[in-house]
Amino acid sequence: MDKLFIIKVGGNILDDAALQYSFLEKFASISAKKILVHGGGKIASAIGTQLGIKPNYVNGRRITDKETINLVTMVYGGLINKQLVAILQSLKCNAIGLTGADANSIPAIKRPVKEIDYGFVGDIENWQLAVHSWQLLLNNNLTPIVAPLTHDGKGQLLNTNADTIASALAIALSKCYTTRLIYCFEKSAVLENIDDENSAIHLMDKEKYKQLLAENKITNGILPKIENALDAIENGVKEVLIGNADDLLQNCTEQVKGTLFK
Amino acid sequence: MDKLFIIKVGGNILDDAALQYSFLEKFASISAKKILVHGGGKIASAIGTQLGIKPNYVNGRRITDKETINLVTMVYGGLINKQLVAILQSLKCNAIGLTGADANSIPAIKRPVKEIDYGFVGDIENWQLAVHSWQLLLNNNLTPIVAPLTHDGKGQLLNTNADTIASALAIALSKCYTTRLIYCFEKSAVLENIDDENSAIHLMDKEKYKQLLAENKITNGILPKIENALDAIENGVKEVLIGNADDLLQNCTEQVKGTLFK
Repeated sequence: MDKLFIIKVGGNILDDAALQYSFLEKFASISAKKILVHGGGKIASAIGTQLGIKPNYVNGRRITDKETINLVTMVYGGLINKQLVAILQSLKCNAIGLTGADANSIPAIKRPVKEIDYGFVGDIENWQLAVHSWQLLLNNNLTPIVAPLTHDGKGQLLNTNADTIASALAIALSKCYTTRLIYCFEKSAVLENIDDENSAIHLMDKEKYKQLLAENKITNGILPKIENALDAIENGVKEVLIGNADDLLQNCTEQVKGTLFK
Repeated sequence: MDKLFIIKVGGNILDDAALQYSFLEKFASISAKKILVHGGGKIASAIGTQLGIKPNYVNGRRITDKETINLVTMVYGGLINKQLVAILQSLKCNAIGLTGADANSIPAIKRPVKEIDYGFVGDIENWQLAVHSWQLLLNNNLTPIVAPLTHDGKGQLLNTNADTIASALAIALSKCYTTRLIYCFEKSAVLENIDDENSAIHLMDKEKYKQLLAENKITNGILPKIENALDAIENGVKEVLIGNADDLLQNCTEQVKGTLFK
């Protein structure tokens, strides 16, 4: 099976033009097949504020209302996604920008209303994820750049967490490719002590995770990444890494820095 | 050769949700291979105003400055394009949204500065338009939905007239497909007298165009459409039509209403 790298990048890199460019250079130089999943960044909030769109919370949970889904469709699906594509093209990477609506690449369902109606938020049902659209692009040397948006098949775009999209794609595509899932974030690895870069956890499995959770050493920010990573490993993804983009992409095919999930 | 319909739709249809939906239903039902090229609409100006982006004119000509290219990247490449894709998916049309940067589908050059620097405006050089990306999508039952944006290959997105994109695509793809180019606009056809829907010109060629131009019967709005249409016919496109979407898409493979270019 061909190798496939699925790389998730977030706001810490997208918000800084120089950091972003250096990241994209490294990404473009990966010779294996690859997919980039990007999150948002400060620009969505900044434009939202300018447009007078106020974050909408119910019981402390952020709601994606009509105005917000339109905002993220513009900013994630348009501005950020297309700028990444244009820069990658200049780096000779044949990028193609996608939301989950494009080519029906990530069908989802609007999150069912229980205590809270989260609004236009999409949950991916992994079995629905048809791999043939992805194979068509990947096997023709195209590099998908994925905005964190899905759709319900009834005409509605939905907001979906980029970490979750990356994990769902890795699981679905690990049937056709030897898949490495990489979550880039601001630390060099998952840390035992968040203030100490020397406390990196180099190997993580379910047992280790339970232990850290019991010791209260998992911060809220990293929790969903770890859960998505463990979910990916359990569902057939060969390798999952969390760490700093510089470390993980520099010699992407060889060494392993950051936190490796087993 | 397979048939290909390239259909350009503009603000008059995009600005009205009901009109847009009815147009998309007709578009989705076309059984031939098809591409939709869309323009902007009032929403870009409305959002621009909210963001405090003022139209920038030099010597009476509209300039695409940095703020404006970011605005149209958001609105054309994101909001409008992705909403069209999501609705078409609900109509069982396997749409995929593109700018000219995606898959390097429409390379362009920044318009050379002569008397005026138009800013981030892209001119397409037809010979540069690689058909293989388009064939890959079209021959795999994907329907490209094209936003009026190109790129310079150096990382910069560019604003390009949607009529021109439609014509350039039709010319390039007429080598591989029997291509019909359709410009949908608010009138039933090009009219001899703009106030009289009964003055439709059903057949247009270069001679007729020169005559109308001499008689001062061509209004500014329709001039670029006619020139793009004649350009397409001269460069191998089988049929070009200008008229009302209802007439042109209803029995798309059969009858001819509107203005046919020969």
